[in-house]
Amino acid sequence: MSPVFLSFGTGVELRFQEKLMGGSALDATGVPLPDETLAAARDSDAVLLGAIGGYKWDNNEKHLKPETGLLQLRAGLRVFANLRPAAVLPQLVDASTLKKEVAEGVDIMVVRELTGGIYFGKPRGFGTNDNGDETGFNTEVYSASEIDRIARVAFEVARKRRGKLCSVDKANVLEASMLWRRRVTALASEFPDIELSHMYVDNAAMQLVRNPKQFDTIVTNNIFGDILSDEASMITGSIGMLPSASVGESGPGLFEPIHGSAPDIAGQDKANPLATILSAAMLLRYGLGEENAAKRIESAVTETLNQGFRTGDIYSPGTTLVGCKRMGEEVLKTV
Amino acid sequence: MSPVFLSFGTGVELRFQEKLMGGSALDATGVPLPDETLAAARDSDAVLLGAIGGYKWDNNEKHLKPETGLLQLRAGLRVFANLRPAAVLPQLVDASTLKKEVAEGVDIMVVRELTGGIYFGKPRGFGTNDNGDETGFNTEVYSASEIDRIARVAFEVARKRRGKLCSVDKANVLEASMLWRRRVTALASEFPDIELSHMYVDNAAMQLVRNPKQFDTIVTNNIFGDILSDEASMITGSIGMLPSASVGESGPGLFEPIHGSAPDIAGQDKANPLATILSAAMLLRYGLGEENAAKRIESAVTETLNQGFRTGDIYSPGTTLVGCKRMGEEVLKTV
Ligand SMILES: CC(C)[C@H](C(=O)O)[C@@H](O)C(=O)O
Ligand SMILES: CC(C)[C@H](C(=O)O)[C@@H](O)C(=O)O
Repeated sequence: MSPVFLSFGTGVELRFQEKLMGGSALDATGVPLPDETLAAARDSDAVLLGAIGGYKWDNNEKHLKPETGLLQLRAGLRVFANLRPAAVLPQLVDASTLKKEVAEGVDIMVVRELTGGIYFGKPRGFGTNDNGDETGFNTEVYSASEIDRIARVAFEVARKRRGKLCSVDKANVLEASMLWRRRVTALASEFPDIELSHMYVDNAAMQLVRNPKQFDTIVTNNIFGDILSDEASMITGSIGMLPSASVGESGPGLFEPIHGSAPDIAGQDKANPLATILSAAMLLRYGLGEENAAKRIESAVTETLNQGFRTGDIYSPGTTLVGCKRMGEEVLKTV
Repeated sequence: MSPVFLSFGTGVELRFQEKLMGGSALDATGVPLPDETLAAARDSDAVLLGAIGGYKWDNNEKHLKPETGLLQLRAGLRVFANLRPAAVLPQLVDASTLKKEVAEGVDIMVVRELTGGIYFGKPRGFGTNDNGDETGFNTEVYSASEIDRIARVAFEVARKRRGKLCSVDKANVLEASMLWRRRVTALASEFPDIELSHMYVDNAAMQLVRNPKQFDTIVTNNIFGDILSDEASMITGSIGMLPSASVGESGPGLFEPIHGSAPDIAGQDKANPLATILSAAMLLRYGLGEENAAKRIESAVTETLNQGFRTGDIYSPGTTLVGCKRMGEEVLKTV
């Protein structure tokens, strides 16, 4: 892959290496994350990831699922902080299923813990209980330092935004959440300029529908973040548009669209490429510190939308329906 | 409490006993579920529960939280199946934050597993990891028979509805979910008339916003059910209206509004009493088998809404704003 879309005088030159992971790695090498891929990712300055998964591998055993490769990559790169913006673009407010007055102006950043919690906790597996009955089990576990480091990222993110942080947990039931709430609360004294609140996850799932504008930055654990960030993104009506950035303390960040691989429309030139393009913009900003180049891509996306081009997922009457390839070309023209 | 609202010739006569639990039990007895309350609940034919919790007890230790009393009551009554309807009433379609065409006609039943999973799994607690760092941990665990019994209830519920069952899990990551999916899939052969599908929980959280009409009956575990049923209820725009029923294999069922105790408006005569009134209707139907009496209450609620009476949470211009007490009286008049 040659660095086509950046050969336009920002002074940024990129060298690309393409490696397999997920379903395509399974088909080619038998494992979802080949050692070579992880090594190359570790050696890079930043990693851009396509969506993974598909029906074909859905019934694979756990260690042979595409998703397992993704989790191994996140863990291998130690990218514990997953930033998932969910903002309603003025051009796309009609694409939301929420009423216009509820959707317009929504601008949320979900900071999701990405390398801990029930996704990685041990013990996990299958067993037999006292009645001889088969069981499946997982462990939700957080340590104080895991909570502190994600909370710090979230406080910093909130500081660059509107200064409001809502920490989401289930501290009325779960010990892991009680520790979460205690640590986040304790850290607040270091960030006196940030307005911190706490919310139970069930309530947060409701409030996102009732009045999403009440949220600025949300911080939460891995599984609640998985659920709430997807819900928040759908509220914008443009999940095909949303990028994400995953970063650690040092080393390369991981940048990926938040949507899945949409196996139902694979190969039909229908997918919205903007989430991946905007992920590349996040890569430039957070991964390489190239703010100008990032802005340039983001403006090109905005401009392309202003020109009326839409893929099927964000189409509304009066705009121009285009396929994935054409949408990419239009952005490229505008850059 | 005397059985006022049923002395109207349905032939149903009820004897009431009122017992403390949650915050009021904590204040009066020092524990959130006194033995006497559990014993009385066990001896009843059905249990009607008010909403619990409040700021006052939010920082209590776990065994002294109102929520702990609720979990003890659910476990003590072995009510493993929690039925949470989320239907958009034609009179209230405007109360939803979703666009009219998305909200109207939504009629979902969430069947949530209620006495297992991460809410009750062991080990749980606080510890120290190898780095000397404090941890909080919980166990998500399901056994095959726990999954089978909730799945059976859900298949039966779907059969009485539109014949579609969607099982929600995170089987691409969690072993507990892999077993869940395997067992639910195996049971499907006993219910050939039911159309079974599976969905990941993050996708379900999105799909509820994108197109809630695609769902008929949803079955899921305790924590995902907590989150998704609240989200679904908010989609109806009338969470203050929604009842729930929790039933076990035998013994009394537990009937409660799905909303919380809304401590922010406590004592202001503003709450919507309809969820509790409709929970009493569910109690008559599922707890006592008194279908006629249940219908009578439900019709009275519909009629009261048709007359235009609304509490603040469901108010829209052109209707009559009333308080909690008055709303109750209007329903009573109509019964
Ligand atoms: C594919 C899956 C393992 C993944 C997750 O649950 O983290 C995805 O849903 C996401 O949110 O990136
Ligand atoms: C109060 C709380 C323990 C409870 C739960 O999480 O089950 C509530 O949210 C509910 O859904 O009934």
